[in-house]
Amino acid sequence: MASPTPYAPVWFAVLTAVNGNVRAVPETLDLTADPVDLTAALVDVPSVSGDEQRIADLVERSLREQTSLEVVRSGNTVLARTDLGRERRVVLAGHLDTVPINDNHPSRREGEVLHGCGTVDMKGGDAVMLALAGTVDQPRHDLTFVFYDCEEVEAVRNGLGRIERELPEWLRGDLAIVCEPSNAVIEAGCQGTIRVEVRTKGVRAHTARGWMGVNAIHAMGEALRRLEEYRPRTVDIDGCAYREGLQAVGITGGVAGNVVPDECVLTVNHRFAPDRTPADAEAHLRELFDGYEVTVTDSSPGALPGLSAPAARELVEAAGGQPVAKLGWTDVARFAALGMPAVNFGPGDPTLAHTRQENVQVNEIRRCLEVLRRFVA
Amino acid sequence: MASPTPYAPVWFAVLTAVNGNVRAVPETLDLTADPVDLTAALVDVPSVSGDEQRIADLVERSLREQTSLEVVRSGNTVLARTDLGRERRVVLAGHLDTVPINDNHPSRREGEVLHGCGTVDMKGGDAVMLALAGTVDQPRHDLTFVFYDCEEVEAVRNGLGRIERELPEWLRGDLAIVCEPSNAVIEAGCQGTIRVEVRTKGVRAHTARGWMGVNAIHAMGEALRRLEEYRPRTVDIDGCAYREGLQAVGITGGVAGNVVPDECVLTVNHRFAPDRTPADAEAHLRELFDGYEVTVTDSSPGALPGLSAPAARELVEAAGGQPVAKLGWTDVARFAALGMPAVNFGPGDPTLAHTRQENVQVNEIRRCLEVLRRFVA
Repeated sequence: MASPTPYAPVWFAVLTAVNGNVRAVPETLDLTADPVDLTAALVDVPSVSGDEQRIADLVERSLREQTSLEVVRSGNTVLARTDLGRERRVVLAGHLDTVPINDNHPSRREGEVLHGCGTVDMKGGDAVMLALAGTVDQPRHDLTFVFYDCEEVEAVRNGLGRIERELPEWLRGDLAIVCEPSNAVIEAGCQGTIRVEVRTKGVRAHTARGWMGVNAIHAMGEALRRLEEYRPRTVDIDGCAYREGLQAVGITGGVAGNVVPDECVLTVNHRFAPDRTPADAEAHLRELFDGYEVTVTDSSPGALPGLSAPAARELVEAAGGQPVAKLGWTDVARFAALGMPAVNFGPGDPTLAHTRQENVQVNEIRRCLEVLRRFVA
Repeated sequence: MASPTPYAPVWFAVLTAVNGNVRAVPETLDLTADPVDLTAALVDVPSVSGDEQRIADLVERSLREQTSLEVVRSGNTVLARTDLGRERRVVLAGHLDTVPINDNHPSRREGEVLHGCGTVDMKGGDAVMLALAGTVDQPRHDLTFVFYDCEEVEAVRNGLGRIERELPEWLRGDLAIVCEPSNAVIEAGCQGTIRVEVRTKGVRAHTARGWMGVNAIHAMGEALRRLEEYRPRTVDIDGCAYREGLQAVGITGGVAGNVVPDECVLTVNHRFAPDRTPADAEAHLRELFDGYEVTVTDSSPGALPGLSAPAARELVEAAGGQPVAKLGWTDVARFAALGMPAVNFGPGDPTLAHTRQENVQVNEIRRCLEVLRRFVA
């Protein structure tokens, strides 16, 4: 049974004032507590990207004091693992940082809903990982837990990327579960993303004699027509339907109110199923925008679901349902690039992430923990 | 016969250093000199908009000392007129200011070409007006000369507009000749101009789930298609062909690289023949962009050529050729709004105006003066 509070030692080490609310940062968390209370306790420690030291300290102390796991600290990333000599190893990963607080701190419980910055993205998932670490002694698979920093900012700062470079053995395993919000459903693999600039050139002229120029904005009409007519693929892989997308995300052009413009730039974001590489996606866009100047500004590969791997099959069985395709890009792709099957599985509706009204259904937190316990029991 | 220099008193009042070149600002100009030399002398007095005092002083002194005209000074605008009781009055207007100097000062004569800032726009025309004022004693029509400031900047500072408000009787007459560059051909009336914003609205969504949004940029494709397919009218009025135009001059849209944009704004500039009012032009654009939100941001009426008026007919005869339509918007429209026929007639190629290589064929300066002398002789 859960203790009435997730704070194991009752004395509080640090007082912190946030948005006029004063809450204590506990010395450690009770990892055997209700994972909903554990989520609330994590939410109540502010950890906007770059400011994760306090929450990393709290996670590190709790794991060291309440588990027999090997614990390593790297910057504000906390790593913990079993070493039971099992046939397979499962890596669970969750980031500790949040986007900036938006008048939604500290946590607030209303019936079966927990509100606050990070409830969905992704302290609910972190709480599930901690509760699993604190309550499962003899798992069927060896387990590695990765609590990392700086996921919500530019990729170069991402803590998982740093671990990949500095402590790569800590990411190795037979299955990766990234506990990002997925409505407590297994979301497999992820789609790739590529952004291109489509550019037209023209010739400037005074609009009083417009026929002496060539209008670069008019010339973009055909590109927009192709976008409108585009019918994205839906690709089935391992029973997951990856629904692609192609969207203009920016357009700019124009010199002055009386000048025929000589340049127009359309920025397009393509989300592509993981049966295609970024190079495939680029070739596809170059074909689609044939006749236009096309420049790739950035791209990230997708991740195949890999659900035929044994550990992945077991997880799907433990979840008792049909997995679905992950459509957004997540750190799942980092594990896929290491050759591991990788899924998202965590509580919360991802469409609420980064919103002021961010909130999670508490039963999803409990369900995720149950599924993972069944999987490793 | 012209004197060897256009500077009547040989002593120089002020020394001025511009771009490392030191030229004297003369006390007065010799209004009986070769109008090409007179043009060069005017060009050599810098008069970027807002800095017209020296050139206005020079014009005022020259007119007071060398003509019997009634002269009035208003700010940096100089007004001069005959009062001979003629049946008709002709108003000649020229602005004294220039766009900023662009490494093209002072004037430089190469054979039959005079180079420099203002040679085309429009000190050649000012020189023709001054030479006419200084050499025609008993014109067939009463003449009003308006040398005004701040034409090259925002309309609210325009000296002609100020005279219209403060000394309106000085602009009244039976024909207005604005000596803006017209290749020494009579350009009649002018086209109107209207700018509108065409706006689409959409619904934001993450591009990973683009189908949950509505893309406002895609929705602009149809508007661009209509622009591309648009066939502008060419309208014949009084034998002048007004060639209309419709040009996108700006487009903007987009929120972030991974967001379906919820707004796109296309700015369109329409140049319309003077058989249409701004209200007609607006109705035309609203019809063309039916289904879109259309906002008028600014408009100016065109000016009918009015060449059937007696004084206008006489001027066309004196020029000995077929007048053509003025396509750009000029201060001609201000006179047209007062109910007067109004034309552009001045030396220089208007497409060279505002360029660093601005230059005028000197024979065009002489031809304009000859035509006007014939007209009023």
